[in-house]
Amino acid sequence: MSENDNLTLHTDFYEINMMATYFEKHMENRHAVFEVFFRKLPFGNGYAVFAGLEHVIQYIQGLNFSDDDIAYLQKVTDYPSEFLEYLRTFKFKGTIRSAYEGDLVFPNEPILQVEGTLCECQLVETAILNIVNYQTLIATKASRIRIAVGDDPLMEFGTRRAQEVSAALWGSRATIIGGFNATSNVLAGKKFGIPISGTHAHSLVESFGDDYDAFKAYAQTHHDCVFLVDTYNTLKSGVPSAIKVANEMGDKINFAGVRLDSGDMAYLSKRVREVLDAAGYPNTKIYASNDLDETTIASLKMQHAKIDVWGVGTKVITAFDQPALGAVYKMVSVEDSNGKMTDTIKISGNAEKVSTPGKKQVWRITDARDGKSEGDYVTLSDEDPRKEKSIYMFHPNYTYINKTVENFDAKPLLRPIYKSGQLIYDRPNLKKIANYAASELASLWPEYKRELNPQKYPVDLSQKCWDNKRDIIEKVRNYVQQINY
Amino acid sequence: MSENDNLTLHTDFYEINMMATYFEKHMENRHAVFEVFFRKLPFGNGYAVFAGLEHVIQYIQGLNFSDDDIAYLQKVTDYPSEFLEYLRTFKFKGTIRSAYEGDLVFPNEPILQVEGTLCECQLVETAILNIVNYQTLIATKASRIRIAVGDDPLMEFGTRRAQEVSAALWGSRATIIGGFNATSNVLAGKKFGIPISGTHAHSLVESFGDDYDAFKAYAQTHHDCVFLVDTYNTLKSGVPSAIKVANEMGDKINFAGVRLDSGDMAYLSKRVREVLDAAGYPNTKIYASNDLDETTIASLKMQHAKIDVWGVGTKVITAFDQPALGAVYKMVSVEDSNGKMTDTIKISGNAEKVSTPGKKQVWRITDARDGKSEGDYVTLSDEDPRKEKSIYMFHPNYTYINKTVENFDAKPLLRPIYKSGQLIYDRPNLKKIANYAASELASLWPEYKRELNPQKYPVDLSQKCWDNKRDIIEKVRNYVQQINY
Repeated sequence: MSENDNLTLHTDFYEINMMATYFEKHMENRHAVFEVFFRKLPFGNGYAVFAGLEHVIQYIQGLNFSDDDIAYLQKVTDYPSEFLEYLRTFKFKGTIRSAYEGDLVFPNEPILQVEGTLCECQLVETAILNIVNYQTLIATKASRIRIAVGDDPLMEFGTRRAQEVSAALWGSRATIIGGFNATSNVLAGKKFGIPISGTHAHSLVESFGDDYDAFKAYAQTHHDCVFLVDTYNTLKSGVPSAIKVANEMGDKINFAGVRLDSGDMAYLSKRVREVLDAAGYPNTKIYASNDLDETTIASLKMQHAKIDVWGVGTKVITAFDQPALGAVYKMVSVEDSNGKMTDTIKISGNAEKVSTPGKKQVWRITDARDGKSEGDYVTLSDEDPRKEKSIYMFHPNYTYINKTVENFDAKPLLRPIYKSGQLIYDRPNLKKIANYAASELASLWPEYKRELNPQKYPVDLSQKCWDNKRDIIEKVRNYVQQINY
Repeated sequence: MSENDNLTLHTDFYEINMMATYFEKHMENRHAVFEVFFRKLPFGNGYAVFAGLEHVIQYIQGLNFSDDDIAYLQKVTDYPSEFLEYLRTFKFKGTIRSAYEGDLVFPNEPILQVEGTLCECQLVETAILNIVNYQTLIATKASRIRIAVGDDPLMEFGTRRAQEVSAALWGSRATIIGGFNATSNVLAGKKFGIPISGTHAHSLVESFGDDYDAFKAYAQTHHDCVFLVDTYNTLKSGVPSAIKVANEMGDKINFAGVRLDSGDMAYLSKRVREVLDAAGYPNTKIYASNDLDETTIASLKMQHAKIDVWGVGTKVITAFDQPALGAVYKMVSVEDSNGKMTDTIKISGNAEKVSTPGKKQVWRITDARDGKSEGDYVTLSDEDPRKEKSIYMFHPNYTYINKTVENFDAKPLLRPIYKSGQLIYDRPNLKKIANYAASELASLWPEYKRELNPQKYPVDLSQKCWDNKRDIIEKVRNYVQQINY
């Protein structure tokens, strides 16, 4: 089975069951707006790095119920033939606005918006969440690790522990958006233009029976050499063998590094550094790769471990300490039976879980003098703060936390990707996306970037958006009160 | 990008770099044996459920460097053209033995074995680990949840939180092996023959503006109805509306259930049960789906929650509390320059991390009288305990823990899948695999199946296997001692 032979049925059954109801009730073309948002940042981080748009686009481009898909649905459901015929000719003609990959995004603001018929909006929910949840999670985890590592080279080595094939591939791409430099996965390298990294495993040494013969053979067949030195004994056998081979090969190789994959990294790296320096190889780097994450890396840095290049696997590719981002996809507005758009809400006993009705825009507010962030300002889509002299920003739940901002710049977060089914977004390559992500992160105040207990970035509602929410909550409350079956 | 256009490059770069060295050193056809094993059970569980073989087979069947792949490698490496030519004509001609999907597997025993040329063994490492690690993890998590649920229907609803597309699809299949009954993912249903489940979301209710109209429309367009009752207010609006619709529709629908997705599940389910019973719907089931896992389910059961059908998402599809299984792929034997097979080892300072050399077999030992398990007995591949009257089983690290077993049955765990590149395994369908998994689990002593602090299942080495390991450790120690560069 392949991921992409056709992903149209990669959706929850209830989406298609709802489409059937809309179709039979002649509501399939009613206009609707859905928005993706998450409620809580992962890893206690102060920001998230948006990723997944490229795969979402590939998914949307491929949407099409094949004859095979229709035959399957016919077999397992009792859908009327008119509905199956409708699916057979289904085309996505909706409008999508989204954050760009590499954008910093925050809780309780729309990060992707789908506008179109009820049916097309419903169908794409599951796959969009599947893709955006994972890739945003991984880009965010990668960004945390990048901050811990500083400017050192940072490699993604996680394929063998990734959650199946597409996580390995798209996850690898997401780590690049989050600030990694290279991947071990050759297919990810090929598909996404990521630099690939890796030399040899313990098995090379074992197949020769000793370090020296293995390193020598590797050196005779590759110019750039990073020797893995811990198969038998790092200090007694691995490192001395590597140096012996480097001495013998001289200029014929680039003795780029040695890799430590087990043992006490702080101690070993310092000892190995001394030995390499003493042998005349001060430029040979020490690579480390042993279940690392931002916490172990920060600890090794504090211990002045002499590690130059970092390989991170399991912890980044699975987002080990929190392997799911809880982004949801909520209807915010829908055409009623009179053809009028009505804003919608999901009520919850928990104030923070009540969705914010209405088609919205997010404005990133920065100080016009120094470009530093003031926070995000969520408005209804017909508001434009760029026309205002000042804006009043307040916390949506704790309204006494507020400020008036003047002399600001406002940049919209949701930008057009699809218009009426047409892809109108010029997709940048991955390198460009990674550079964009780095520059966005650079403009964020350091207080929001702390690994532990970052300052909370403000995400505020406009007065109009807040009033609209309050009115709709009131309306629903009245509706529930009046029920008397 | 699709998962399957060609997965041959879905491997770590170092695998191909090692292949280059073997090729140039004329070692590419040297015979080798590699084995997959993990060191620690996930979730503190007492067993793991093996899964992933079907995808491994699909991957092996597709192995083939395309012209495109070769062109990419030519661009990013300095491989000599002879090696690229070798890759272009590369075919997998190896032998694979493996546990079957649904087999119970334990730490420190081979669960999959690849035997072939050094090059082919090396190439397939990464993808095999990527697949087996994830699917075995998910089948094991699913099995824990199945045990907590008892015989109630159990659905997988995790696609939107899965780690990208193939995790959603193959993970869904793995939950079925672990004991789930159905999935929400339509494509998984189509590809693997899994029953699909799901009716409608909150958005259906919101698009109608109230529960009653939405349920009525759904009921007019579907026979089997499970109404989601918590969009506005479960007890005041959702459940009364569902009952009103059921009363009106009568025999035209099957009022199969109501679904609770938020709020206090224990309390709500009891209240809803009373209301449904009082309204004359004692057979209408209560579905629950709100961030459930084996712990919350066990707790709800202890509180006598009136939940009949369970939907589990995030926690099973990501194996949330431990999202990676650390299975590794280690060389255990390789042909030396004299054409003789030599057993190999990876040494570690940590006794439990030292690999066990030699091509092996695992024997599941059961008492011939009652069929109950005595433990697993790991031997070198030329041993056959079925020819012995008694076997002496002892703990590989704590050798004073030992027993002599007589009157036993011994079943080999590693069975032939590929022989010299030919698939010789007749692949069962998923239903058969799930039944097999259930019967294997049934034959395991309850003490090994406890969710918390299960008894440790014995995995013992044969005397010959243990002696071989000790001899090789000694040999390596002598080699390291003698180094004097």
